[in-house]
Amino acid sequence: MTEPFDLNHWCAHHLQRVEQALDTWVSVDATADLDHAAPAELMVAMRYAVLDGGKRLRPLLVMAAFEAVTQGMRQAGLAVAASDEELALRAACAVELIHAYSLVHDDMPCMDNDVLRRGKPTVHVEFGSASALLAGDALQALAFELLTPDNAAVPASRQACLCRLLARAAGCAGMAGGQAIDLASVGRALSEDQLREMHQLKTGALLQASVMMGAACGDATAQARQALQTYGAAMGLAFQVVDDILDVTADSATLGKTAGKDQAQDKPTYVSLMGLEPARRYAQTLFQQALVALAASGLPDTRALQGLASLLVQRSS
Amino acid sequence: MTEPFDLNHWCAHHLQRVEQALDTWVSVDATADLDHAAPAELMVAMRYAVLDGGKRLRPLLVMAAFEAVTQGMRQAGLAVAASDEELALRAACAVELIHAYSLVHDDMPCMDNDVLRRGKPTVHVEFGSASALLAGDALQALAFELLTPDNAAVPASRQACLCRLLARAAGCAGMAGGQAIDLASVGRALSEDQLREMHQLKTGALLQASVMMGAACGDATAQARQALQTYGAAMGLAFQVVDDILDVTADSATLGKTAGKDQAQDKPTYVSLMGLEPARRYAQTLFQQALVALAASGLPDTRALQGLASLLVQRSS
Repeated sequence: MTEPFDLNHWCAHHLQRVEQALDTWVSVDATADLDHAAPAELMVAMRYAVLDGGKRLRPLLVMAAFEAVTQGMRQAGLAVAASDEELALRAACAVELIHAYSLVHDDMPCMDNDVLRRGKPTVHVEFGSASALLAGDALQALAFELLTPDNAAVPASRQACLCRLLARAAGCAGMAGGQAIDLASVGRALSEDQLREMHQLKTGALLQASVMMGAACGDATAQARQALQTYGAAMGLAFQVVDDILDVTADSATLGKTAGKDQAQDKPTYVSLMGLEPARRYAQTLFQQALVALAASGLPDTRALQGLASLLVQRSS
Repeated sequence: MTEPFDLNHWCAHHLQRVEQALDTWVSVDATADLDHAAPAELMVAMRYAVLDGGKRLRPLLVMAAFEAVTQGMRQAGLAVAASDEELALRAACAVELIHAYSLVHDDMPCMDNDVLRRGKPTVHVEFGSASALLAGDALQALAFELLTPDNAAVPASRQACLCRLLARAAGCAGMAGGQAIDLASVGRALSEDQLREMHQLKTGALLQASVMMGAACGDATAQARQALQTYGAAMGLAFQVVDDILDVTADSATLGKTAGKDQAQDKPTYVSLMGLEPARRYAQTLFQQALVALAASGLPDTRALQGLASLLVQRSS
């Protein structure tokens, strides 16, 4: 009945689409139809921050959620517009731009002062802090530009919904808010609830938004939206738990960033709070919660979402 | 026929609305209906950056353009929805948030390293660089959040259009791009064309977007949109020319920021390029261009826009 599903193949296919789209949209050429083109120097720093690196987990979550929802639409006899396909790709890239900008700013001397990211010198090391600051700022704006193509074929309702989801996930009640709590928490003891709240904002909000943005590029039932919300929340938390585990178990070369950083900075983590083995078990519990939610989604085929969840929990970097 | 127009009264009325709206929307309470509230520490820095200061020129341009367009609509027998009124106020605040975030980041040690802004210590002096960075990032996201209320009464087409205009004006082919050129131009000789290009991006794009966003909250004719585009472009340039003049003629106390900064940093300005008197004449020429554009707009009443243009050119701080 259903075709066999190969997660590696699925990921490779969508990664290639995302990489190509990022290469196209984060470029001086992409600004050519505007009144003014972007200055080349700034674009070089922006491209350095975005291209050639990164696991693209968030874009893959967008694509997987979009695919799951559109398969549901097709099963219900609804047509999927070509413009929705493109919008999903735009949403995937927009989320990645927000993620990339947050890394650029997070690595800056006034924040984590990190010199290594994805195995390369960080943006401020390569281009200077002022350029890193501006490149990050411009990447955030570009994310919202990608979501609002001046194209009447792309329904404005979808464009507005995507901007709403992304703005909330990125802002003070999302990623930036979580980073602020993180900043204030160095050297302080947090309870498990406080730690969870911090991570829900810092990492969880954008991961969950990725899933919901993919769904928003199609027409999801209320049941499916609810299930994807739960899936996204579990995945967001699991991601951070695994991150904390890797910070103490992996080396810098594998991670492509400085390992042991949280420990060195005396930051509270799931490992410091729970211990290593309980943290591992917690990640597994969250993985199971995500699968249960998908099973209750009413969506006909969620294998890509299941596969990404297992990748996320089993990752080694 | 038409009522007498009092610019001071008009400004006071709309300033009060904008201040009140910023006070309401840049607050922890405004995030209460989301899954998570914004952390209080971050919001304190955001509010410090936005409230109690600033001429609010951009919000006033939004309101004036909206008013001019809606007067045109009423004259043509079209209704203006209450939701459009609120959306214009949201747009006015969103533009100000982008402006405020750009000042916060611009003042940081890795950029202009300025300690005084609107007569107060800059955000990084008051809260530290890391908090300033995050507050700026969160203000940018909040701007797009304000433009996308989860309210079916606000047409998605307007929401999407506003996000599109703001994202382009703020990003790499707008404000952030202009700042990157500015950064690269310190100590270099620029031609008048290059200087104009830099300022079109750095300051002009957002001022012009303010006008166009006000127009986008109503239904403007193509003729009116074209005229407002020209008006906005002239005002954007005039603003920078006047800024350059004030940098050499005003003192820090009047400006509420460090005077003579451009000169000290050997930055190219209209004054250094043209001389003081020619720069003053150029500002007057741009003012006249703006008035000519308004006269050709077909809009029945553009007195607020005319008044703001004259304020902008005659300002002393």
